Amino acid sequence: MTTPSEPDDIFWMRRALALAESVLYTTAPNPRVGCVIVRDGRVLGEGATQPPGGPHAEVCALRDAQARQEAVQGATMYVTLEPCSHFGRTPPCVDAVLAAKPARVVVAIGDPNPLVNGQGLARLRAAGIEVTTGVCAEEALAINAGFISRMSRGLPWVWMKMAASLDGRSALHNGMSQWITGPEARVDGHRWRARSCVVLTGMGTVLKDDPQLNVRGVDTPRQPRKAVVDGRFEIPEDARLFDGAEVILFTAREDAAKAVRLADKNARVVVLPGQEPGRVDLPGMMDWFAKEQFNEVHVEAGAGLSGALVASGCVDELLLYLAPVLLGDAAGMVRLPMLEHLDAARRYEFIDTARVGADLRLRARVAGTWQQLMQRVALPALT
Amino acid sequence: MTTPSEPDDIFWMRRALALAESVLYTTAPNPRVGCVIVRDGRVLGEGATQPPGGPHAEVCALRDAQARQEAVQGATMYVTLEPCSHFGRTPPCVDAVLAAKPARVVVAIGDPNPLVNGQGLARLRAAGIEVTTGVCAEEALAINAGFISRMSRGLPWVWMKMAASLDGRSALHNGMSQWITGPEARVDGHRWRARSCVVLTGMGTVLKDDPQLNVRGVDTPRQPRKAVVDGRFEIPEDARLFDGAEVILFTAREDAAKAVRLADKNARVVVLPGQEPGRVDLPGMMDWFAKEQFNEVHVEAGAGLSGALVASGCVDELLLYLAPVLLGDAAGMVRLPMLEHLDAARRYEFIDTARVGADLRLRARVAGTWQQLMQRVALPALT
Repeated sequence: MTTPSEPDDIFWMRRALALAESVLYTTAPNPRVGCVIVRDGRVLGEGATQPPGGPHAEVCALRDAQARQEAVQGATMYVTLEPCSHFGRTPPCVDAVLAAKPARVVVAIGDPNPLVNGQGLARLRAAGIEVTTGVCAEEALAINAGFISRMSRGLPWVWMKMAASLDGRSALHNGMSQWITGPEARVDGHRWRARSCVVLTGMGTVLKDDPQLNVRGVDTPRQPRKAVVDGRFEIPEDARLFDGAEVILFTAREDAAKAVRLADKNARVVVLPGQEPGRVDLPGMMDWFAKEQFNEVHVEAGAGLSGALVASGCVDELLLYLAPVLLGDAAGMVRLPMLEHLDAARRYEFIDTARVGADLRLRARVAGTWQQLMQRVALPALT
Repeated sequence: MTTPSEPDDIFWMRRALALAESVLYTTAPNPRVGCVIVRDGRVLGEGATQPPGGPHAEVCALRDAQARQEAVQGATMYVTLEPCSHFGRTPPCVDAVLAAKPARVVVAIGDPNPLVNGQGLARLRAAGIEVTTGVCAEEALAINAGFISRMSRGLPWVWMKMAASLDGRSALHNGMSQWITGPEARVDGHRWRARSCVVLTGMGTVLKDDPQLNVRGVDTPRQPRKAVVDGRFEIPEDARLFDGAEVILFTAREDAAKAVRLADKNARVVVLPGQEPGRVDLPGMMDWFAKEQFNEVHVEAGAGLSGALVASGCVDELLLYLAPVLLGDAAGMVRLPMLEHLDAARRYEFIDTARVGADLRLRARVAGTWQQLMQRVALPALT
């Protein structure tokens, strides 16, 4: 990780990253991985991880090379994540790589999965294959922050989508909020839903907007799950989000009869009472998501749940769409406990700014958490 | 304005614009103008407008060419604003240009000053000089939006500087606000003060922060004027902003004795009562600024005056520094009348996004006003 990367390595790794991006919506709970096999500046084969149960990126790329009748022996393989070394639903990718006998394998980041965690690379090196690590590590982590977070700290990666005016208002005093940002921002927001494992909202939003909570206007073969924080278990049984797709309801209150009725609508009730009566244990909910193999959580909620998630340290990243408009007296974005000093405020780090139609999309994340993940995927140089 | 500009013309006009930028703090109330004289891809001379009473850009560039012993005859002159054709504190630049006999003059935008307004270019064309117009017109207008606004609509160009958290809060509930954004954002804000003709604030800010209202941490030979909206004329006579520099106090109430005492502190009292008792006529204040040759007004005020200026249509541009922090329950940025529908909200257009230290600087302007100014500086192609 300490030596600067060669321009060629960066070029090919970016191509591998683009392949990983191309399967952003379909690999969960597995990581999105891309692989490019190169010799003398020419692609011999390439591929990306297929939906769960299907082959991983390395095997796809090797099969692609075979289909093109290219021999991989002595070539260089670029992989965005350390090849797996264990039997899951598919055999270890490392075995396939070893059999193909490349001269060199370049890897962006390590896989902190305790079943891999450097062993994949150790086996390659033991077979005399040259291994380079840490090429485009930041970008590679960004594509799989959820998987890496779940593997390394037992938590999903949680982003919170918000839309507001320039002065931080997300609704008028009369509740009107649907069209603060424009159509491009709404489609972009649905792309983030599409890549997530679950779209999470609160009861305030369910009662106010009766959302469908699914992905619309984005071409995806997979819908993320839906989840609602409903401490008092008062969700209307005819809410629009019950459309046959699985819904997870987090409550602080038992109601067996209602749970049975909702099970018919494919709703799963998870009782997770928090400290305060009628409130869900939000950090416990995130633990639950990780245990159930949810990598990425997309939060899209009102000021109440958004503020509670921020205050309980559950949010890793903010995804904020800002409309070029001033609203003045109107509803705020997040309800947070009063601060007595600015030092106590939650600090983020801007990571990306983009124009989306007439609006701006700002991304910011909790700096410390990201650094921790980066440390967990850093791979030692050849020892 | 309708034919696309040649790459060479854009290259040299950008150099002229950079020269205009270099005198951003010093030419008011005159426009900032840059001029480059070129032959066969070589600079013969260049210059920018000197402080009031000194030579304008064209004359500076011609003198520079003379000092370098370069003959300008037959060369091309790039000027960011139409050369003046009238006697002001200096003779008409057009006369100097005609005397130098360039073959071609390229101009970014026209000067809507009724004393110029196309006559400068008409005289050049009448002398057989080829004139090209509209090269880098947007950038040229941005450098002199204040001068152009004053000349074409009798109003200064008004921007409003604000600093807030990601959720649009500019102070904690206890009033703490000084350090929401970082030191880089504060310096950048002072650069905007430095280019303005006047820094305007309200009495709320004077009472809360006792600001000096001057430029600090930026190298400028000229300080902008200071102004306070003080409807009830209750400014403390020992306020820190009375440091000997000129202060303009806008009030709705006469108090001759206080005005005389403050005159000793270089304060000028302008009584401009608005419709509501105790309130200053804000649009009238902007008229006054233009009549007194103020091109650019830098507003840096609390939510009350900021909101009143926005609501009365006095603000052309927003200059917003956003800190990557969430504050939740805290003071808002602008106090505006309650809206019943989003269609009634004031709409802006994002024009620029920049990272400034850990913060973001967003600029947005009223789209319609800008288009009007662009139309006023558009020059007809050769007829």
